[in-house]
Amino acid sequence: MPAPLDAAWTRRIESVQTARHAAGRDALVVSDPTNIRYLTGFDGSAGLLLLSIGDVRLLVDGRYQAVVRDGVARGELAAVRLEPVPLRYDRTLGDVINAARWARVGFESAHLTVATLTAWQRRTPAAAWVATDEVVERARAIKDDVEIAILRRGGRAIADVAERLPQLIAEGLTEREVAARIDAAAVEAGFSGPSFPTIVASGPNGAHPHARPSDRKLVRGDLVVLDFGGVLDGYCLDLTRMSGIGQVSADAHAMFDAVFDAQAAAIAAVRPGVPGHVVDAAARTILESRGLAEAFLHATGHGLGLQVHEGPRIARIDPDATQPPPVLEAGMVITVEPGAYVDGLGGVRLEDDVLVTTSGCEVLTEAPRRLLIV
Amino acid sequence: MPAPLDAAWTRRIESVQTARHAAGRDALVVSDPTNIRYLTGFDGSAGLLLLSIGDVRLLVDGRYQAVVRDGVARGELAAVRLEPVPLRYDRTLGDVINAARWARVGFESAHLTVATLTAWQRRTPAAAWVATDEVVERARAIKDDVEIAILRRGGRAIADVAERLPQLIAEGLTEREVAARIDAAAVEAGFSGPSFPTIVASGPNGAHPHARPSDRKLVRGDLVVLDFGGVLDGYCLDLTRMSGIGQVSADAHAMFDAVFDAQAAAIAAVRPGVPGHVVDAAARTILESRGLAEAFLHATGHGLGLQVHEGPRIARIDPDATQPPPVLEAGMVITVEPGAYVDGLGGVRLEDDVLVTTSGCEVLTEAPRRLLIV
Repeated sequence: MPAPLDAAWTRRIESVQTARHAAGRDALVVSDPTNIRYLTGFDGSAGLLLLSIGDVRLLVDGRYQAVVRDGVARGELAAVRLEPVPLRYDRTLGDVINAARWARVGFESAHLTVATLTAWQRRTPAAAWVATDEVVERARAIKDDVEIAILRRGGRAIADVAERLPQLIAEGLTEREVAARIDAAAVEAGFSGPSFPTIVASGPNGAHPHARPSDRKLVRGDLVVLDFGGVLDGYCLDLTRMSGIGQVSADAHAMFDAVFDAQAAAIAAVRPGVPGHVVDAAARTILESRGLAEAFLHATGHGLGLQVHEGPRIARIDPDATQPPPVLEAGMVITVEPGAYVDGLGGVRLEDDVLVTTSGCEVLTEAPRRLLIV
Repeated sequence: MPAPLDAAWTRRIESVQTARHAAGRDALVVSDPTNIRYLTGFDGSAGLLLLSIGDVRLLVDGRYQAVVRDGVARGELAAVRLEPVPLRYDRTLGDVINAARWARVGFESAHLTVATLTAWQRRTPAAAWVATDEVVERARAIKDDVEIAILRRGGRAIADVAERLPQLIAEGLTEREVAARIDAAAVEAGFSGPSFPTIVASGPNGAHPHARPSDRKLVRGDLVVLDFGGVLDGYCLDLTRMSGIGQVSADAHAMFDAVFDAQAAAIAAVRPGVPGHVVDAAARTILESRGLAEAFLHATGHGLGLQVHEGPRIARIDPDATQPPPVLEAGMVITVEPGAYVDGLGGVRLEDDVLVTTSGCEVLTEAPRRLLIV
């Protein structure tokens, strides 16, 4: 159980209340579990958070009422009002909204399913439901001091795992065996578990950016992508390093060097006020200059926090986007992870987690990036 | 990598095509990742499956195109047509639908977010989008021979872990330490990982049905709820047993006996043609007769398969339900897990996984259910 966060929860809820008011919503229903966790500390598998003028209510069913009541009393959850759900969430939510006679109620359209919105609308004939997105996500993208402290500790811990890689990898082990060793090392380093399924992609498998560990044994000449993370006090870290089994080919070395330089250029571009696509372009330009434009199959990075993938996205400008492209701000924590993937040759990716500071950035996961030859 | 399932995939896709046709949809977009996995074997983090007359297409972005191309060629995925997504899923999906001039297109309203449906509608001004739910879920609820074979093996393996519990629990260990031992035992038993975070809830913590393991040490007189599972070849098992640390109170024994009898009564009620609420009532009646009506805070069970919670729900009749209550059919696999939770005293739950057969049921997780005194 992490330490209570009373002051942080109060600030987070206040910032969302301000945004709700500015958007002209009488109430806002937060349904995304991670958003609820961020605002209250509650992390059950069900629950709805209802914010309205001067009121914050958490709707939970019988499984969680004692947890919420005790958690609030002990200061382990934000000071929310418990609204018990005896039968169905849509019914209780509808009763509350109808009793309050709210006209405009916001919902998280990026998280709510069509079926659930339909059920809510059926219960509340007098209310207008208005999509109200990115309110909590915008707050989450800028980490507060409590979060930065956790992510700094987590960054050091995952870097420690990276420094142990020479003992965890060896010719003849399967990808799956190496992944299990990395997972065990992450638990020893203090993580409660992996933040996503560990990727160990060797030789030809490395050409798939999201390969799953297989029973393939590491053999001489392989490039090996090692992409792993951990969860510390609820926050996700994410790191990628590269290994070579014995000597790798000159082509493989050249691809590694290109990605190494692309990552360095992208990290150097990180500072407040810079749009995410500029950081992406810094990496992409280097890879293009080495003939690897088509080999870079994904975006340069993503935000990190309670989820291993969250905003902002560090990618090319999306011509179809309905939102303006994201701009880096101090307090954001992002990955910087260019890669190159070539059928036959394999793949290379290097990834670090970076805090945007007022003057530039701080790499949270400082550990050797060189190609680790074992 | 599980064995290829060519014949199973073909049957599954055909059954969904038949349901699509019967519902009068020119095409159906399957967006739920588990439903896509069930129909094709593909388990990437993104992708859309598009079923139309005589055609099955899998839309995937650059990260997954090689995986799908190679997987289909090697027979490790269903024989789908690859539809590459160069930029955005909504754009590619819109282009395909507009080119085909489909009038009525089904979508999974229980899985699709409002924001995504809005984006799809914007791309396809001539198409009518019609909620088309439960098509794949209905197929998934009745396990085929391939699935039953996996779940039988998994049931035996998780029962083996249950039989090792006497060596895993001891006075003085923390809940978290016991959970870690159980997780390690499940991996040794052949599971790829837990199917949900293991619950070890001791003494007063047991009164919360979904308690998380804490640093509380097991002390004499505790009742301990041990609820754990594992994933085998993609399929989830789920089992709960009870331990007592030294001797427990007469009240605790009486609560255990009530739940033991309630579970036996519910399992005895499982056979094809019986509505789920009748199985629930079999357990609930026993608990009511022991004065524990208010202590049973959840439903009696749920379906198991690619997800640890899926249909059918074994619960009281929901007066607000839009669907008729589920009726058991041969081939369904469900949990039977009544419980009782009393503040101060703690909690009791017993859970087994049960296959509905043509004549009754088969308990897949046969292992001693008695209160395990350590």
